[in-house]
Amino acid sequence: MPQLVRVQNFTVSRDGIAAGEDQSLERPFGHVDPERLFSWAGATASWPMRTDPGGSRGLDDYFTRDFACNIGAEIMGRNKFSPYRGPWEDHEWNGWWGDEPPFHTPVFVMTHHERAPLTLSDTTFHFVDADPATVLAQARDAAQGKDVRLGGGVSTIRQFLEADLVDTLHVVVSPVELGSGLRLWDSPDDLLDRYHLDVVPSSSGVTHHLFWRK
Amino acid sequence: MPQLVRVQNFTVSRDGIAAGEDQSLERPFGHVDPERLFSWAGATASWPMRTDPGGSRGLDDYFTRDFACNIGAEIMGRNKFSPYRGPWEDHEWNGWWGDEPPFHTPVFVMTHHERAPLTLSDTTFHFVDADPATVLAQARDAAQGKDVRLGGGVSTIRQFLEADLVDTLHVVVSPVELGSGLRLWDSPDDLLDRYHLDVVPSSSGVTHHLFWRK
Repeated sequence: MPQLVRVQNFTVSRDGIAAGEDQSLERPFGHVDPERLFSWAGATASWPMRTDPGGSRGLDDYFTRDFACNIGAEIMGRNKFSPYRGPWEDHEWNGWWGDEPPFHTPVFVMTHHERAPLTLSDTTFHFVDADPATVLAQARDAAQGKDVRLGGGVSTIRQFLEADLVDTLHVVVSPVELGSGLRLWDSPDDLLDRYHLDVVPSSSGVTHHLFWRK
Repeated sequence: MPQLVRVQNFTVSRDGIAAGEDQSLERPFGHVDPERLFSWAGATASWPMRTDPGGSRGLDDYFTRDFACNIGAEIMGRNKFSPYRGPWEDHEWNGWWGDEPPFHTPVFVMTHHERAPLTLSDTTFHFVDADPATVLAQARDAAQGKDVRLGGGVSTIRQFLEADLVDTLHVVVSPVELGSGLRLWDSPDDLLDRYHLDVVPSSSGVTHHLFWRK
């Protein structure tokens, strides 16, 4: 089995925006209300952050339950981990996810400001100042043969696409227009020179875009 | 997490037929050419029986790669295991799958003719003469908290539906008409009194039907 680099459940607006600008502690998605993007996922039975029973088990649930299947490590940008910029001042900051992060694997956080690894339950965050290929080599090694999830945000995914290091992308287009913010693409067609694409509308109103390498 | 009973990748023709009559050693699907039903699955990268690299990683692949995710046991009817009927005469018969069956878990084979368990690689077949609820209790216990796959064939799935023991069904409708054979349903609508349904067409030509309990 090849060891893939996979983007999963990455959600953007119809105009390609995944998060707002002006991220802050109170607003991890900046001016964008994440509910407007992620309600499709929160409605599924397998949403990793779900705390109560219930939820749908149709098409959307196949994607949320695939989140952890055969994943051995995650790579994320610093802004997915933290609202802070520059040298770490608050070493008490442990990410947005509390004491039980939903990753359950090593996580490699790309940052120009290294710090000691941080272990919360069965997730360990490593802070790495390196280019995508170098970080990926570390993540592949840590994943022990399983796939590597590329968790975002936008600039991290764009860097990895630029370096041609992504094997598959699952991007969910939500039926909202945001107008401004951090933009993944002008159009899904931007990737068609290098990827096959299945476009799959869901009864929830979102449209799943499944890309895999040609 | 609830422990589910799941039908996965079960494929029927447009007229609801999953296998032909007159099963034999040479023709496990009787008069039906299985290629006509299963070519959608064989084209995917994650098809469990794939022996060469390659294959698609779009929508259909989500279903074939979900085959083993969080599955701890399978239940199958005797006719999925063997072309033979009545008391076991050929104890050398080890199933259709060779020395490395694609299940990798305990498998419970429903039969009126018990025999000693059979272990091939990391799959062990148990032969059980009992009603669906009793077999399911054994499979749940063996699955150690993971889900139980209900593997078919038609009469086994119909028995479990009759006993209301199925939580989710993924049934793939292939764009072929077979006319006669073992029929799962007259129409997917037969299940709508008890299940939600997402109908998802694939670019391969098949239509995925995803049922989950109301």
